[in-house]
Amino acid sequence: MKIAIAQLNYLIGDFEGNVQKMLSYAQTAKENGADIVVFGELAICGYPPRDFLEFNDFIRRVEESIEVLTAAAQGIAIVVGAPSVNLIPEGKDLYNSVYFLADGEVKHLQHKALLPTYDVFDEYRYFEPATEFETLEYMGKRIALTVCEDIWDIEEENPLYTVRPLDVLINEKPDFIINVSASPFNYRHAEDRIDIVKANVAKYGLTMFYSNHVGAQTELIFDGGSLVVSPNGVVHREMPYFMESMEIFDLDQVDAGKTASLQPKDDISEIHDALILGIQDYFGKLGFKKAILGLSGGIDSAVTAVLAQRALGKENVRVLLMPSQFSSDHSVNDARDLAENLGIKYDIIPIKDVYDGFMGKLGEHFEGLPFNVTEENIQARVRGTLLMAFSNKFGNILLNTSNKSEMAVGYGTLYGDLAGGISVLGDVYKTQVFALARYMNKDGEVIPENSITKPPSAELRPDQKDSDSLPDYDVLDEILFEYIEHQKGPSEIVAMGHDEALVARILKMVNRNEFKRHQTAPVLRVSSKAFGMGRRLPIVGKYLS
Amino acid sequence: MKIAIAQLNYLIGDFEGNVQKMLSYAQTAKENGADIVVFGELAICGYPPRDFLEFNDFIRRVEESIEVLTAAAQGIAIVVGAPSVNLIPEGKDLYNSVYFLADGEVKHLQHKALLPTYDVFDEYRYFEPATEFETLEYMGKRIALTVCEDIWDIEEENPLYTVRPLDVLINEKPDFIINVSASPFNYRHAEDRIDIVKANVAKYGLTMFYSNHVGAQTELIFDGGSLVVSPNGVVHREMPYFMESMEIFDLDQVDAGKTASLQPKDDISEIHDALILGIQDYFGKLGFKKAILGLSGGIDSAVTAVLAQRALGKENVRVLLMPSQFSSDHSVNDARDLAENLGIKYDIIPIKDVYDGFMGKLGEHFEGLPFNVTEENIQARVRGTLLMAFSNKFGNILLNTSNKSEMAVGYGTLYGDLAGGISVLGDVYKTQVFALARYMNKDGEVIPENSITKPPSAELRPDQKDSDSLPDYDVLDEILFEYIEHQKGPSEIVAMGHDEALVARILKMVNRNEFKRHQTAPVLRVSSKAFGMGRRLPIVGKYLS
Repeated sequence: MKIAIAQLNYLIGDFEGNVQKMLSYAQTAKENGADIVVFGELAICGYPPRDFLEFNDFIRRVEESIEVLTAAAQGIAIVVGAPSVNLIPEGKDLYNSVYFLADGEVKHLQHKALLPTYDVFDEYRYFEPATEFETLEYMGKRIALTVCEDIWDIEEENPLYTVRPLDVLINEKPDFIINVSASPFNYRHAEDRIDIVKANVAKYGLTMFYSNHVGAQTELIFDGGSLVVSPNGVVHREMPYFMESMEIFDLDQVDAGKTASLQPKDDISEIHDALILGIQDYFGKLGFKKAILGLSGGIDSAVTAVLAQRALGKENVRVLLMPSQFSSDHSVNDARDLAENLGIKYDIIPIKDVYDGFMGKLGEHFEGLPFNVTEENIQARVRGTLLMAFSNKFGNILLNTSNKSEMAVGYGTLYGDLAGGISVLGDVYKTQVFALARYMNKDGEVIPENSITKPPSAELRPDQKDSDSLPDYDVLDEILFEYIEHQKGPSEIVAMGHDEALVARILKMVNRNEFKRHQTAPVLRVSSKAFGMGRRLPIVGKYLS
Repeated sequence: MKIAIAQLNYLIGDFEGNVQKMLSYAQTAKENGADIVVFGELAICGYPPRDFLEFNDFIRRVEESIEVLTAAAQGIAIVVGAPSVNLIPEGKDLYNSVYFLADGEVKHLQHKALLPTYDVFDEYRYFEPATEFETLEYMGKRIALTVCEDIWDIEEENPLYTVRPLDVLINEKPDFIINVSASPFNYRHAEDRIDIVKANVAKYGLTMFYSNHVGAQTELIFDGGSLVVSPNGVVHREMPYFMESMEIFDLDQVDAGKTASLQPKDDISEIHDALILGIQDYFGKLGFKKAILGLSGGIDSAVTAVLAQRALGKENVRVLLMPSQFSSDHSVNDARDLAENLGIKYDIIPIKDVYDGFMGKLGEHFEGLPFNVTEENIQARVRGTLLMAFSNKFGNILLNTSNKSEMAVGYGTLYGDLAGGISVLGDVYKTQVFALARYMNKDGEVIPENSITKPPSAELRPDQKDSDSLPDYDVLDEILFEYIEHQKGPSEIVAMGHDEALVARILKMVNRNEFKRHQTAPVLRVSSKAFGMGRRLPIVGKYLS
């Protein structure tokens, strides 16, 4: 028996496009001798469809799409995920299901039992968990179908769920396991996935075919890396990352347990590739081609510009250099050098006149009051307004360039440098931004060395430096990481060796600036805990604030 | 036996403040002869605590607070909701629980079974559902404890859950039922609550004491209206709305079934009162006093200004009138009349010079291109920047004035008129804004009649009217309501008598503008489906778009 895994890039709600793509891959698989082709979780409608699932019209279109695929399942079986209607009166109205379509009919329908409802996942919002589990027989083989999280709750000590589908399915003595997934990228998650699939194979002693999505859906980036693991526990195949791909596997060969070498893993290169895919799909799926951003001469906008150029092509990236009276000469020079290195169009628009225009209007109202964050913010908002004017006039989407460290502590101006359609670096700590810059320069200088080595500064007042009011980024990022990614409290972080007053001050800054993050663009997610839909905190509250 | 219901306004994460408040009310209840005092769901930490629940430090502080309340439960029993740790290894690590504290110890702990995970609710994100249900005996009475949603799944036809706690608890023959709730306001929800409590009483034949929260938590407004319903099905008492209150009830008298008259219900007056509470708590709980907003002479900013003045006091509201070359004279006059009626400070800052300053910078880049939405947006962003400058300089929070109809179709400028710390009218359709204005003027003209009767216009280009590109608001709001509140698809809305092309165009506008709503302020929720945390849709997708 030959099984094809197709890791594809779907568009949420684009039933026609998704189905056509699957039909085309199924045809290719059939022509190449596959008996079964496996797509991803909720592939019919794309993942995550979110509240579209609450529209009967949306579910009707899912069902029409399933009918089309069912009719096409001739000479090849199609395994595909889709929402399905719960016919039992009790419980949520939908299941998250995997269909097994063959000989022009629905041969089997298995619902998902383990519904991730944490971080970016909201599945119990929509779906009833399965309570019944059955294998199916096809071409003389007995097959266990599972959906994503169904195989993840394997740890014995503190499991998140009270049921485990494979513990039931294994009683029917299946020959192998298929898992259809939609498992988003983070820079450690490929290892997690390999570990989990291997743990299941070790426990149940069966081959597993694991099919993931690829492609970005707003902030979530699916990285592919579908897996085939042999019963002896070795990874038979780790499919490519960050690209669509289909491969066909011979079950006998997989069962024989030939070892394959795993792809090397590296946080920074993975983040680099993920962000490029994230930008590409945000633009492509919205029907846009062109980006604009402000280049300050600093490292964040430099790294964002490089990613944009690599994602969209140099002809589709335009930058504005908008020095103020507080900008240093080298900032403009560094920005210009970068634009020239990248071959992207740049314009220099000094903002002093417009800033002075605002201050002229405000002078009488602000009389006697000192220069403060107000005037800093006006500069940032003048830049934001200029960038948005280009965005509106020419149809370029504005890229936000804020990094995770500054978004965490609230260093950024709402409606100013926090503007933009998508946040490229909002899940990348400043220390990781430096590493990305070094990685980008590994084959020759793209980002001017000076942008990397000079002390970070917002340049919104004379001689300003980030270090005036923040600790070194090494220290800051460690504290932020423990608080954000690990949900550590102040005493736990202090116990790791950090200064108590500093920890209190940083956590307070994080909590008090929730209101800013609420109003910023979706953040391309590369870590296990990104700002946005996966991190939900009250704006009004009094905890560590 | 005497039972006190205390509907209180908590602050999320303010353990000390919440506990002190409860101790004070418990003392008063005891002094007035109460045997039991009932607070609300998760009252210890405030509702909704959201991802703070993922911090062990936060849970530790919950447990410390429970200890303080337990020690104080002498001579009076305290019924209070709090998260509690799930000691079983399987499942989520927390329960949403109600404690019965008496004689200085925890007499009983009942977990919640029905975990709302829809709309604004995310409870299965944090909590394991209860599977065991027990009553307790206190002072010779057997009491059934339930938490909020536990009593809501009473309909027989399509229940959302597969268990019903009172069906189990009733077997122990309790004498009465207590429900601790955190049930947020919408303008029809008070009726829903009365119906549900009555339906439970009708089914189980027992008195029910239903205790709600009051007060706003960012976008969610809790309206109180706690209830006591007698076994014969009559409402014994409907407590006040929109204010803290405690009342003590004699169980024998309640059981006797004396009828009380219900408070009159009116959508518009409820929305009015809810928004005032929403503004008050947003400011008060963040430690701010003063608001600023832009007055255009139109109805949205007028209604927002009235609400702000009523919520914060006239001395705490400041407005800017920022006419452009496209503003009509009457707009400035109407705005000035309103400010004078309200007794609030206003300044007039014409924006033409600053706008011209921007155009001077942009002219060479935009040469030969016609005036379009770009130039309109620049005007809105100049205004946004001026308002934010006052906000930053003087510590006034900017109020957003956009209504639900325009937020739905994307009529609004990001970083311009969509700026602000809290959206006051973002869940109020334009037709409801008109009704609010009439309601505000019922005892004499507050809002100038002209602001209500003139054709709505953004005044961002010559002779612009909303009706140039939108249908009448009566028609628009009907279509939006069916799509947003009722999740109707295009064919269903057309079947109600609306034009097919118009429906398609409107729904497309709604879906394509998700990116704008993603970046706007939290919206005070007054309907059953508000923009924000309760409505989660993909930004990138292709469904009705």
